[in-house]
Amino acid sequence: MSNQAPHPALLIPGPIEFDDAVLQSMSHYSESHVGAPFVKTFGEALSMLRQLFQTTNPASQPFVISGSGTLGWDQVAANMTEPGDEALVLHTGYFADSFADCFETYGVKVTQLKAPIGDRPQLDDIEKALKERKYKVLTVTHVDTSTGVLSEIPALSELVRRVSPETLLVVDGVCSVGCEEIRFDEWDIDCVLTASQKAIGCPAGLSILMVSGRAIESFKARKVRPNSYFGSWKNWLPIMQNYEAKKPSYFATPSPQLVHALHTSLTQILSRPLAERFARHKEVSDKVKKAITDLGLKQLASKPENQASAMTAIYLPNDLTPPEVLPSLLKKGVIFAGGLHKEIAAKYIRFGHMGVSIMDPQRTDIDDAIKALKEGLEEAGYKA
Amino acid sequence: MSNQAPHPALLIPGPIEFDDAVLQSMSHYSESHVGAPFVKTFGEALSMLRQLFQTTNPASQPFVISGSGTLGWDQVAANMTEPGDEALVLHTGYFADSFADCFETYGVKVTQLKAPIGDRPQLDDIEKALKERKYKVLTVTHVDTSTGVLSEIPALSELVRRVSPETLLVVDGVCSVGCEEIRFDEWDIDCVLTASQKAIGCPAGLSILMVSGRAIESFKARKVRPNSYFGSWKNWLPIMQNYEAKKPSYFATPSPQLVHALHTSLTQILSRPLAERFARHKEVSDKVKKAITDLGLKQLASKPENQASAMTAIYLPNDLTPPEVLPSLLKKGVIFAGGLHKEIAAKYIRFGHMGVSIMDPQRTDIDDAIKALKEGLEEAGYKA
Repeated sequence: MSNQAPHPALLIPGPIEFDDAVLQSMSHYSESHVGAPFVKTFGEALSMLRQLFQTTNPASQPFVISGSGTLGWDQVAANMTEPGDEALVLHTGYFADSFADCFETYGVKVTQLKAPIGDRPQLDDIEKALKERKYKVLTVTHVDTSTGVLSEIPALSELVRRVSPETLLVVDGVCSVGCEEIRFDEWDIDCVLTASQKAIGCPAGLSILMVSGRAIESFKARKVRPNSYFGSWKNWLPIMQNYEAKKPSYFATPSPQLVHALHTSLTQILSRPLAERFARHKEVSDKVKKAITDLGLKQLASKPENQASAMTAIYLPNDLTPPEVLPSLLKKGVIFAGGLHKEIAAKYIRFGHMGVSIMDPQRTDIDDAIKALKEGLEEAGYKA
Repeated sequence: MSNQAPHPALLIPGPIEFDDAVLQSMSHYSESHVGAPFVKTFGEALSMLRQLFQTTNPASQPFVISGSGTLGWDQVAANMTEPGDEALVLHTGYFADSFADCFETYGVKVTQLKAPIGDRPQLDDIEKALKERKYKVLTVTHVDTSTGVLSEIPALSELVRRVSPETLLVVDGVCSVGCEEIRFDEWDIDCVLTASQKAIGCPAGLSILMVSGRAIESFKARKVRPNSYFGSWKNWLPIMQNYEAKKPSYFATPSPQLVHALHTSLTQILSRPLAERFARHKEVSDKVKKAITDLGLKQLASKPENQASAMTAIYLPNDLTPPEVLPSLLKKGVIFAGGLHKEIAAKYIRFGHMGVSIMDPQRTDIDDAIKALKEGLEEAGYKA
């Protein structure tokens, strides 16, 4: 079934399991980062990202830079805002606090709009906030990896354009790109930032962004230079444009092996209609969520409409804690993640269901995981 | 000889050719970044870096962060200096200009001490500069990838400690770590920054630093927070210490596959005495430089004492340009790099001789490259 050494199924909300061909691409022989073969590979990967984000507007600009997903926050804060600007950060869990901290590092004033755990800020409250102050950017976590809460982008975008049309809409899609639909043009988004190791299905090490023409124009009109060097679009914009035009150029050395793996994973994703991929993730997610409910367990994401397809965050029953449950799941060949939301980390676990574990019909990862969870909880004394 | 698909030998000054086992480690199956197996691998890699840098002082601190080598400059500028501080940048080519640009991004005032192309700043001039102003940091490019010029670290360190003992000594070792000796403790260095894809022999995508206890203390005494988020040691220091203590923790997701490859390459490097590795690089470099001289060609690095073992930058004869020479070398199975120093880029080529191409006795990369260069120049009408 797989050429990989036997190993437990990694079902955390990223990194996910990777396809054999993607992992083999990681072993590609060494190439010059400015030689024609690699320039072609990188350029094609950038163009394929346009398809993944469903953008045909030539003004949209993809960026692929070596780094963790977190580097995407620095890119937003250093390039899309200037010191003294205001940012409205919608809070659905752990990652909004960190994104806010990143903005403050770059001298941006942050207002957080917090929802109760398991919920998302409501449109009425967002509208009120947008009317109170002029925000340069509004950020939303599409799927919050700490809670499994899904945010609704189209309605949010419509609201922003109606109430504060110049505010740039930034979507943190680290845990959504590749498994939740994103229509970059149609939803009029200004930036989606993501990482390689989740539903895109490529090992960690790439910060991936799609940026709108409006955001690039705003960037070009900055009064001060970007206050990051490695994360500066002033340095990277010509490089990305050159790679996509198949012209060699240099700012900092990219990772040819990771870019090859990204090329392979994007080729696989785009070989089938995207709608099919999103529907399949939704279908498997529904199955997981039904199994969780059948086990008598509750999710952090409290309402069906705010539950992500990417993952499920599950409250443990009987006051069990992750260290009492996760090791027995590991013995059964399944790796789940512990809690991450600071206030309740000891009370829940996270089950990621993205990528090949969902899309490869030969894999039984998800059914095995549901079975392991049931048995593991029973061994810990829980009866559904 | 190698399990890799047939390909031209990559003999640019990085990325270099990689060993089969290192490339196979890039295909490691997916692991949790906070699971015990990967935490152990990462922790061991950090500890092995201490050996590579020849530091036994427990106050020394290694950092391994996803990113290009360039991210190391941001880490230095954002963590070791504060806005308004002064930096003295020794200039031996392209990279000093860029490092200076990085410092200015972070609000640091830069003084550059420039040497003629192919030479390095002289100790007398450095002493004079250090006496004129109080510098928070002095930076030196150990091997300048644009010129092949080697800087002498021990004498420079002795000078700094004598004239301006509080100035932090920063060595850009991107093109030196792993093939030129660095005695971190004995030479009393405060920071060496490097990248994975040169003489360390691991694919690109990791920014690697060794930082002294003195620099960490200075960092902890900062008046303002680091002005980078992704590059902040405030965020990364506890993570690196936890990984090395084999304790899971999270700031941003590292790249397990790249860290596995780093672990493999460091294990290979440390399986033999380091002195032997440095001597072998010097021996092969001497052979290359003799062959260049025998061909009647001149190096950019004008004096034997400032010529690096890592690479050789070679002036082309007969007013030939890199585009007239490099394609015929590629046809012969060898990839060299064009010029990079802005003022003379069209006049020279660069030959990297690091890592497995040097250390693997079964590889004939270097002899093949010398032969190809001779034949290629002859075909272009040059007679030695």
